[in-house]
Amino acid sequence: MLEGYRGKAFETLKSLNVDVGDIIEIEKNGIKVEGILMPSYSEDDSIVVVKLDNGYNAGFSLSGAQVRLISKRLRVDQSEYRENREKGEVRIISTGGTIVSRVEYETGAVRPALTTEEILRFAPEIQEIASVSAEILFSILSENMKPEFWIKIAESVKRAFDEGHEGVVVAHGTDTMTYTAAALAFSLIGLPGPVVLVGSQRSSDRPSSDSAINLISSVILAKEAPFGEVVVNMHGESSDTYTVAHRGVKVRKMHTSRRDAFQSINDKPLAKVFPKEKAIKVLRSDFIKRNDTIKASPKFNQNVFLLKFYPGLRPDIVDTLIASGVRGIIIEGTGLGHTSTDFLEVFKKATKEGIFVGMTSQCLFGRVNMNVYQTGRLLQQSGVTPLGDILPEVALVKLMWALGHEDDLDAVRGIMLTNLVGEYNTRHSLDLFPRWDHE
Amino acid sequence: MLEGYRGKAFETLKSLNVDVGDIIEIEKNGIKVEGILMPSYSEDDSIVVVKLDNGYNAGFSLSGAQVRLISKRLRVDQSEYRENREKGEVRIISTGGTIVSRVEYETGAVRPALTTEEILRFAPEIQEIASVSAEILFSILSENMKPEFWIKIAESVKRAFDEGHEGVVVAHGTDTMTYTAAALAFSLIGLPGPVVLVGSQRSSDRPSSDSAINLISSVILAKEAPFGEVVVNMHGESSDTYTVAHRGVKVRKMHTSRRDAFQSINDKPLAKVFPKEKAIKVLRSDFIKRNDTIKASPKFNQNVFLLKFYPGLRPDIVDTLIASGVRGIIIEGTGLGHTSTDFLEVFKKATKEGIFVGMTSQCLFGRVNMNVYQTGRLLQQSGVTPLGDILPEVALVKLMWALGHEDDLDAVRGIMLTNLVGEYNTRHSLDLFPRWDHE
Repeated sequence: MLEGYRGKAFETLKSLNVDVGDIIEIEKNGIKVEGILMPSYSEDDSIVVVKLDNGYNAGFSLSGAQVRLISKRLRVDQSEYRENREKGEVRIISTGGTIVSRVEYETGAVRPALTTEEILRFAPEIQEIASVSAEILFSILSENMKPEFWIKIAESVKRAFDEGHEGVVVAHGTDTMTYTAAALAFSLIGLPGPVVLVGSQRSSDRPSSDSAINLISSVILAKEAPFGEVVVNMHGESSDTYTVAHRGVKVRKMHTSRRDAFQSINDKPLAKVFPKEKAIKVLRSDFIKRNDTIKASPKFNQNVFLLKFYPGLRPDIVDTLIASGVRGIIIEGTGLGHTSTDFLEVFKKATKEGIFVGMTSQCLFGRVNMNVYQTGRLLQQSGVTPLGDILPEVALVKLMWALGHEDDLDAVRGIMLTNLVGEYNTRHSLDLFPRWDHE
Repeated sequence: MLEGYRGKAFETLKSLNVDVGDIIEIEKNGIKVEGILMPSYSEDDSIVVVKLDNGYNAGFSLSGAQVRLISKRLRVDQSEYRENREKGEVRIISTGGTIVSRVEYETGAVRPALTTEEILRFAPEIQEIASVSAEILFSILSENMKPEFWIKIAESVKRAFDEGHEGVVVAHGTDTMTYTAAALAFSLIGLPGPVVLVGSQRSSDRPSSDSAINLISSVILAKEAPFGEVVVNMHGESSDTYTVAHRGVKVRKMHTSRRDAFQSINDKPLAKVFPKEKAIKVLRSDFIKRNDTIKASPKFNQNVFLLKFYPGLRPDIVDTLIASGVRGIIIEGTGLGHTSTDFLEVFKKATKEGIFVGMTSQCLFGRVNMNVYQTGRLLQQSGVTPLGDILPEVALVKLMWALGHEDDLDAVRGIMLTNLVGEYNTRHSLDLFPRWDHE
């Protein structure tokens, strides 16, 4: 593949049997430069784009230059890996995302392409921590993750524990990692060990990559942590000293690019992991312990909708949703859990038709309380169910799961109001709200 | 009004000419209790509910009790106020919300009811800071705020400056205060002074109320601050030492109940205000200065939709929106600004029909960058416009405003991509991300 190359550059590279991703050397005027061949988006068809060791891409004109192939990009036959699953202490399931994409195409795509073997080669420390066995489940960008894939992941995790693994690491793109974490948390009970979702905010060919640290500390967690819970384990701060294991149903991606983007909301993290020391610091005692009665029940009904309220939103959107056959709606209301009172009638109509309508807050922090103000009381009288401090996205995933198991409104409401895996935290201390800089 | 009272309690209170909100005394077994009569929601029709000085509500059975009216609740004729507008240094415009609701009905509604005069009686320090003139514009709960009310507020602010006021304070419910702040920021240019939106997270009859401090420091800002900007001024931390003036287009309500719920996102606040010292500390130099060319252009097109993406969301919602006549869609995408690639086709269809589709991130912190990953590039090729670090809610309000002025897609895109009043911050320092407690 020589994506984007045309004319002279294409011919030269082709004649050298070079593909995008291979390491090449360019020599010109006595100066040699080595780097990974990147796709070209240059107008000039004599330019070759190379990713240098420092992470930057540079374009070189081939006029008067010598190109040499240093090494081919490693290509692993994925089918071989699928067959090669065997018991280890920790199973690493790859689903795709930046953490499994070694070569980043800054000029274009970052494509999830590499295999788990390459990750192990990339982070050899892992083999000092645990024997690992790898499964490439699929290789999709996490923005393309869907409930049907959650089912596959849950089944794969169950299989790994059934085979005797002590913990499971799920490599996942960061975009929708917390949705998958919530889906697994509701689908898997009686976990014999941790299910650690891990991703990377910077691909592993970058000097600032968090791939290795996140992966190493996830294997430590999977092998050593005392809990049988689904957690998200990602960088804790902007330096490299520790990662944080967040309860899978209380965590949110709070920054588009920072390595410490993932943070617990309305909850304390479960543990910190120090990858250099290979140590875990458990931060709380109320975790769900390792168990050995694992049951998987990954069923989801996608006929739900997450409706974020704002001034000017018209109630007829709810009529449209009802007409489309929706079975449940999660509102991201304002403040303590409100919408305009214009919505009272459509919510009454929806709940009369057996549609679950649940209220969360777009504030994210704190909890809804629909007894303080009149609007909250009226919304409850219209059938809207307050969902405490549960995050909007987690409420949505839980609703898909609840509707996958029950259709009767009262039964669904019962599930939604039950604290199944710590998705509700009833004790909020002041330090759960982060500190903001006002200087 | 004797809301909720029936039978014996109703007859007794009625005979004494007592209404809800009046101060009464109940004497029973030699013990006297004084408090504000609250609405009754008791099943027992002999119970009278009274709010005590400590902020708690208590129910008293009238059997064997003596009730006495101590004082009637103050009632001010609002129409008198409407006529009584005259020049002062600072105009206080009341729109409703907790900050203007002195009596809280813990058993039921908190209703915005009181007048600006009562607020001044409640915070007499204000008169030492500036001469104020009050306008009760309306009295609505902020969850019922709508674009047509934004227009009224903008016109009222313009009028106040035209009359020669040095600054304007807008008392507003907290639920949708930031939406109104953004609407005013886009609608009013060349401001001669600050437009300070202020609310209260706890009503002023509570010991922990932030009403007085927020209001006093807002008047200080309106009179003294050097900027001609729309700001949100609310409690800065959990004690009472200062408030923070946030740029109206970079602030979000981040907690359902904390007094310091309002925080700047991707931006530094403009100033801190110390109400006891009556002092302002300006935190940055790049504010928009006081001007004297005020123009109001509050026009909004409500045919927009805020679509939060999640795994399992089906692209046909966009078809539905197109069919309903929507003129613009703001996506709250994942991570750097993504949706599933299933949406490429519908976004292409929408933009071909002249509908603006803009991308923001549900991470809230950081900025979208649709050049890093292939999905981002493909979304851009489908006509989706990346909106930098602008908050989803602010993007939505700006889009309503842009579509209120232009209909052509290129013109709307031009407005959306122009940094009008600081809604884009191109310089992100590390300390813009709050610090999270990991212990």
